[in-house]
Amino acid sequence: MEIAADIVSTVFAQLQKPTLAFLIGGMLLAALGSRLTVPDAVYKFIVMVMLLKVGLGAGMAVRDADLLSLAVPAVSAALIGIVIVLLGSQTLVRLNGVARSDGMATAGLFGAVSASTLAAGMAMLEAESIAYEGFIGALYPFMDIAALVTAIVLARVAARPETVAISQGDGTAVLGGGGSPLLERGGLGADTIRDILLDTFRSPAISALLLGLAIGVFAKPDGVFESFYSQLFYGLLSVLMLIMGMEAWARLSDLRKTAHAYVIYGLVAPLVHGLLGFGAGLIIHNVTGFSAGGVVLLAVMASSSSDISGPPTLRGALPEANPSAYVGTSTGLGTPVAILSIPLFIKLAELTIGF
Amino acid sequence: MEIAADIVSTVFAQLQKPTLAFLIGGMLLAALGSRLTVPDAVYKFIVMVMLLKVGLGAGMAVRDADLLSLAVPAVSAALIGIVIVLLGSQTLVRLNGVARSDGMATAGLFGAVSASTLAAGMAMLEAESIAYEGFIGALYPFMDIAALVTAIVLARVAARPETVAISQGDGTAVLGGGGSPLLERGGLGADTIRDILLDTFRSPAISALLLGLAIGVFAKPDGVFESFYSQLFYGLLSVLMLIMGMEAWARLSDLRKTAHAYVIYGLVAPLVHGLLGFGAGLIIHNVTGFSAGGVVLLAVMASSSSDISGPPTLRGALPEANPSAYVGTSTGLGTPVAILSIPLFIKLAELTIGF
Amino acid sequence: MEIAADIVSTVFAQLQKPTLAFLIGGMLLAALGSRLTVPDAVYKFIVMVMLLKVGLGAGMAVRDADLLSLAVPAVSAALIGIVIVLLGSQTLVRLNGVARSDGMATAGLFGAVSASTLAAGMAMLEAESIAYEGFIGALYPFMDIAALVTAIVLARVAARPETVAISQGDGTAVLGGGGSPLLERGGLGADTIRDILLDTFRSPAISALLLGLAIGVFAKPDGVFESFYSQLFYGLLSVLMLIMGMEAWARLSDLRKTAHAYVIYGLVAPLVHGLLGFGAGLIIHNVTGFSAGGVVLLAVMASSSSDISGPPTLRGALPEANPSAYVGTSTGLGTPVAILSIPLFIKLAELTIGF
Repeated sequence: MEIAADIVSTVFAQLQKPTLAFLIGGMLLAALGSRLTVPDAVYKFIVMVMLLKVGLGAGMAVRDADLLSLAVPAVSAALIGIVIVLLGSQTLVRLNGVARSDGMATAGLFGAVSASTLAAGMAMLEAESIAYEGFIGALYPFMDIAALVTAIVLARVAARPETVAISQGDGTAVLGGGGSPLLERGGLGADTIRDILLDTFRSPAISALLLGLAIGVFAKPDGVFESFYSQLFYGLLSVLMLIMGMEAWARLSDLRKTAHAYVIYGLVAPLVHGLLGFGAGLIIHNVTGFSAGGVVLLAVMASSSSDISGPPTLRGALPEANPSAYVGTSTGLGTPVAILSIPLFIKLAELTIGF
Repeated sequence: MEIAADIVSTVFAQLQKPTLAFLIGGMLLAALGSRLTVPDAVYKFIVMVMLLKVGLGAGMAVRDADLLSLAVPAVSAALIGIVIVLLGSQTLVRLNGVARSDGMATAGLFGAVSASTLAAGMAMLEAESIAYEGFIGALYPFMDIAALVTAIVLARVAARPETVAISQGDGTAVLGGGGSPLLERGGLGADTIRDILLDTFRSPAISALLLGLAIGVFAKPDGVFESFYSQLFYGLLSVLMLIMGMEAWARLSDLRKTAHAYVIYGLVAPLVHGLLGFGAGLIIHNVTGFSAGGVVLLAVMASSSSDISGPPTLRGALPEANPSAYVGTSTGLGTPVAILSIPLFIKLAELTIGF
Repeated sequence: MEIAADIVSTVFAQLQKPTLAFLIGGMLLAALGSRLTVPDAVYKFIVMVMLLKVGLGAGMAVRDADLLSLAVPAVSAALIGIVIVLLGSQTLVRLNGVARSDGMATAGLFGAVSASTLAAGMAMLEAESIAYEGFIGALYPFMDIAALVTAIVLARVAARPETVAISQGDGTAVLGGGGSPLLERGGLGADTIRDILLDTFRSPAISALLLGLAIGVFAKPDGVFESFYSQLFYGLLSVLMLIMGMEAWARLSDLRKTAHAYVIYGLVAPLVHGLLGFGAGLIIHNVTGFSAGGVVLLAVMASSSSDISGPPTLRGALPEANPSAYVGTSTGLGTPVAILSIPLFIKLAELTIGF
């Protein structure tokens, strides 16, 4: 009981932190009908600068890290992304009123990673002076890409017979099952997965992150990192949180038109996924000495749902899926719930590992 | 005579300060036909960051202030806003060639507050190391909203009979006088005032300022305030001054199509209103020990005319008023005259109160 | 041989510097088909802030400089700009498949100056702690305007007969030769040159630079210069380099449609022009004690080709010239080659002058 009270009081204390205050402020402004908007050009620039910052920081850390200590969390991150999507395909997708492609797209977004949520997690750890591995940002693409590819492949496997039927134009339903015909039709073979991978790598978010990583590893950006990217990080994050809050409120209305299942998933999934990531992090901690801060950030990444790179990738790959469902659930519920859960994972790490 | 020479030399010295230099530079560029423009998205972002900065700073100061020392200037600020509009309705509105709704809209803008002018005033005081109450930014909405509501209500009271006549469609002129019918018709009762208040609160400028205030009071944004909002303040202000200068020159041409009365009002009103604010500040200084810097900023707020939040609010509330008249007078003349008058109020404070 | 190896190793070391890493990273991203883009509004703002920074810095240095030490490099800069254009008119313009107006426009751009390249040069000198005259930025407009005016005048002199023929509409070809008729027709006299000068001064880049210069000379912007313009310089430069890299790759495809001559010119001209500038700088160094860093920056300016102010000025003045040719050659090849050559000029200065 005391622990529960302790958790609650920690969470409330965290709500006073500027990161969460700006998120809640943005939601309040939108709820009250404010006409304040942040221009899209500014939003894109802020996201790019933050992803470059996360990438540069991770790249400079990777430069000095041994590959083994990096490999275990990276593989784990990819596995977590895949497990989250599989979990979604066995829960959300089977619920009442959820179309298969809509459900798979939603599960894909919840498996993918949100740069704003990860940045918020980093900022909150740094505000508490909790250390974490510098290379954590490098895990982002592993989890993100694994989840998106899994979701798109699963959705296409299921959709294939219909597609074939339509493309044959004679009503013949070819039962699925995979195999060589898929490869020939360009449906689901190595070519498709390569296309999805390429498309994901080319997305603005992953591009910016990988560019930062590469420059961090191969060049020496320490000066500009300190004077610009690090310097502006918290301020730009505060503006981004404000935008996420306003966006979340605006997107919530999208959910009114969709099945109740999405609302339940959007509220519960970030916590479940976060605990999954936390558990995986705890194992890595015990095996390799992964830091408590690293465990928190793995949980935050698992908890988060993609708001930048995911939606356009899914729109391209699954044009039949309804964006109101997957963007509404992810941006309207998943992102704010994940950000507001960060203090919970910090507290959990304090209780299980200690700082 | 010596005092006059002293004032003139102070004003000229201030023209060398970057804040005014950028304003004058912007006017010169526009006058010389430069094609330099600052993208609208950047302008909106700069204004938002500056209003958040003013709000956060005020909020953090309000947190530690006793409410009484805040209440006297706040009530005074609201009264000054109302008096300026009433003054305008007795002068500008009665002048030749001034339509009632255009005149009231102009008086409303001159009673409202300009974020850029207030920020310039703060920057110039800080450059001179002149202290002022941290909560000054919190006075902004009191003066701003009081002025806008007064102007809109006065304009609607005057316009009401016609409106009724038109809506009755039979030429019957119902003489005004207020009372319950107004409430029923949604013309001017509590509902209308609530609508105007709501609309003003929802304007981007007031929203950003109040959000900053709330976060400053309830959260602990000191870190991000120092590393971002305060750090970028002077630089963003210099860009904003450049924009205001270019805008002022561009808007001046609007005034050619309107009555001469607007030109006179735009040149004289900022000085008269500033002296009014200065006088009120002087009284508060003598009664409550309000600082000399605070008196200057109260004068600056009174002197300034709204360039961000006011125009859209007025366009919504008084669609019959001509924006060329009110925006031209305010942005083309009121804002540059008010900004260029800041050194005058600083000098005046030095002569009457001393720093 | 040892010197060559030394140069090569210096250049490779420089490729690790963030300035060049971001340029190459941008080219790689574009080559790999990344959808990362920097919004145009952000690009314009970054360029404006950087030009204001260069101008302010130069202006503050001019304030304290004696005019003579400024006059020699300024006149040299203008002469270099003119010589580069004359050189282009005797080489590129006479090559196979090059239309006269296209060739002159290209030569004009290569004579003009690139703010991003100059900024990259300054950043790379500062990273190596190599001093240069603070007023160097003030040389920019001398070279830039001299080159653009020369190119436009030469192109118009050649094009005049046709223009006249067309405007007379009767097929009569009036042979050129200059003189009063030109003045009357507004073709090429003092009026035209004044128009070109005015148009160049009004271009966003020159406007911003001259505004910064004027404020640097006449006001005291030292505070805002340090806290904002200087503070953000390297970070904004890194984003600008990213944009230039992506732009360069995108523009390269334009060159496929044009004559091979442009490709050769785009690759060779920056080096030849840079050496020309370096030689001129070396003479000034020996005569007036111009610094080694100043010699490098004069070479960088000569080597660079205009990517911001030049193209729109040329589009206005030479509407018959094909932008694919001149913008493709300049932005696609000239700018990256010039930026990548900076380490070469630094090494050359070390070898000939020493730091």
